[in-house]
Amino acid sequence: MKLDGDNPVRPKNMQYLRNQNRAAILKRLAVNGPTSRQELSIGLGLTKMAISTIVGEMLEGGILQEGWLHSPEGGKVSGRKPIPLSVPSRRINALGVYIYRYQIACIAVDINGKQFAHRKCGIPPDANNTLFEQLVLQLVQRVLDETKEYTYIGIGIASIGPVDTARQWILSPPKFGSIHQVAIGDKIRERFQLPVLMDNDMNVGALAEHFYGIGKSVDNLVYIGFGSGVGAGVIIGGRMLHGKGGYAGELGHISIQSDGPICSCGRRGCLELYTNTPNLLEQAGVASVGALGKLLRSPNAPESVVGLMEQYYSAVLNALVSVANLFDPEMIVIGDQGAQLIEPELCAMEGRMNALMFQQGSGRISLRIAGFGKKSPLIGATALVFQQVFRGMLAVE
Amino acid sequence: MKLDGDNPVRPKNMQYLRNQNRAAILKRLAVNGPTSRQELSIGLGLTKMAISTIVGEMLEGGILQEGWLHSPEGGKVSGRKPIPLSVPSRRINALGVYIYRYQIACIAVDINGKQFAHRKCGIPPDANNTLFEQLVLQLVQRVLDETKEYTYIGIGIASIGPVDTARQWILSPPKFGSIHQVAIGDKIRERFQLPVLMDNDMNVGALAEHFYGIGKSVDNLVYIGFGSGVGAGVIIGGRMLHGKGGYAGELGHISIQSDGPICSCGRRGCLELYTNTPNLLEQAGVASVGALGKLLRSPNAPESVVGLMEQYYSAVLNALVSVANLFDPEMIVIGDQGAQLIEPELCAMEGRMNALMFQQGSGRISLRIAGFGKKSPLIGATALVFQQVFRGMLAVE
Repeated sequence: MKLDGDNPVRPKNMQYLRNQNRAAILKRLAVNGPTSRQELSIGLGLTKMAISTIVGEMLEGGILQEGWLHSPEGGKVSGRKPIPLSVPSRRINALGVYIYRYQIACIAVDINGKQFAHRKCGIPPDANNTLFEQLVLQLVQRVLDETKEYTYIGIGIASIGPVDTARQWILSPPKFGSIHQVAIGDKIRERFQLPVLMDNDMNVGALAEHFYGIGKSVDNLVYIGFGSGVGAGVIIGGRMLHGKGGYAGELGHISIQSDGPICSCGRRGCLELYTNTPNLLEQAGVASVGALGKLLRSPNAPESVVGLMEQYYSAVLNALVSVANLFDPEMIVIGDQGAQLIEPELCAMEGRMNALMFQQGSGRISLRIAGFGKKSPLIGATALVFQQVFRGMLAVE
Repeated sequence: MKLDGDNPVRPKNMQYLRNQNRAAILKRLAVNGPTSRQELSIGLGLTKMAISTIVGEMLEGGILQEGWLHSPEGGKVSGRKPIPLSVPSRRINALGVYIYRYQIACIAVDINGKQFAHRKCGIPPDANNTLFEQLVLQLVQRVLDETKEYTYIGIGIASIGPVDTARQWILSPPKFGSIHQVAIGDKIRERFQLPVLMDNDMNVGALAEHFYGIGKSVDNLVYIGFGSGVGAGVIIGGRMLHGKGGYAGELGHISIQSDGPICSCGRRGCLELYTNTPNLLEQAGVASVGALGKLLRSPNAPESVVGLMEQYYSAVLNALVSVANLFDPEMIVIGDQGAQLIEPELCAMEGRMNALMFQQGSGRISLRIAGFGKKSPLIGATALVFQQVFRGMLAVE
């Protein structure tokens, strides 16, 4: 197992070809499901003989398995059925760690996207860096202990931002107690001796939905998490938009009202001033997103709260149309707390977004709720590891 | 010479390796200048022997040439000097066509970015599709006739948007007479029997600056053209952000004032309502950007005009900070008419943009004026062709 860095020189030699073709086969089987050699040959543009050789080696290594396809017509298909190939369950596994406000979660997932262990623990309000690191390491250790019979190819970390992805540090997330400037990547790597990948929760949320969730069929999607802040993870042409330092997608700090109130960032009228869920709940006088929904569905919903929601939806729509105009995606996926608030308005909002976007040439953009709900970043932490496999940067032998 | 489509299946076989390595060598020499075999070996991560074989073949084909480096110390360097390699002048050439309001331009450029022919012609206000097509074909023919001794590997087209990049159509640009829905790509391809690439003026403007202009040293840049509209071309990780249909970067239609005036697109407060250059000139009562600059520099510049400019700069700054927050680039390049207006304020604006952007972790973003000025899209049209070479999708033999 070998992990290249993020922007390595990858010599284009025979080893590279081998890695790329094995990676492409793994991606196809893991993401799209069982596939025959013939389909692989067409999909990868390689001769049947070349595919057979590569597949043969992978079968020998136990990375792939063979099995007969169940015919959809109940066995009525005549002629020889193609032999499907798949990645055996729990053969290629990753751990995902999701660090968010008040809680840490850890999950074990195989490359087919199947989850097989899941634990979480709270972060005490008075936790400092040392305690926090201990909690993370203990949680990972616990999942490893519970799944001793399996091996892992890497550990992915998703964290609320800001994250220094190059150094794999959690910087200074707002409302994160006295925890700040934590070199969590190094700590995990040193303890568990596995490749460690790290990114912010929005970027990996997008990745989870793209590989295993609602966005499997599209190569251009934007995942937007509406919570206390607003962030976006962008997949364009099947690749994550990362920017120079991984800070792309700070959607919460585009100004939608240039003479609006001053934001903590120094600008006026930033989007997240208008879509901050905790603020919204406080103004509506309710304790949770669920309670707010219930209040709105009741026959005597206060007009003030209805008015609040109209403002909220209007700001969300503003963000959606700008995202549509800037990224030209096929799909926008809504995650985080906002998903529950936006879901009842999803159809109407999709219609208005499509009517308002500037270029109609790309066809309709689909607006969807995150397939994994609040778990998108957690699944996404493992997707970060599998992405390296699919790109041929983390070789599985 | 073989041109793959935009999203082809590229079988990862020996032919692919050969193409990729030749492409990488060409890119290095054309974009970064003469380089020795040793530097290529380090840069590409290949053995010296592998580089020698590939280079040998390219020398034989006349695609590369050898020559001694001039030592910077005037010949004082001892030991054997490394032999530099370069791409001979006018050996690999492309034609670029830039279609904009009232005018068509055509240029001949070699892969090193050297221009060697340039012609333009006006588009009569009453031109229809047929006349327009004739003008384009005549102009290209003229440049070809004037440079008969050279061969071309492709023709790139840059056009004001909207452009259907897949079908290579000019759709219905505003204020473009009765010209609309022109299949200009097919017309040029049929007539000249060369591969044709096409994109909108902003995307190719970004490409020109990235390969040959002010953004050569950076892999993450956003080119913003401030004219009657506002558009952005985005290069992230060295790749153009294209979106599903090539419509990414419609920066003019992000709303910066959600209760602002209604835009032609149906939204309120779109950026380009505040940065439209022709409107600005009209309001200031001057005929040109140059005259406006002169007026502002005069001791008795009217306060109303100074106020107009403050509003303009404020809207531009708003756009810059949002772009910084969304794309996390290393550099933002200002093009089109706005460049001349923004240049005197460039330093101040760079400072304010950097102070206001949300994530400071990536370091300072450089704000620059387009190296090619208004010619960026024209050079960019040829860069579109060379990009295919650099990506190994247009093989040069």
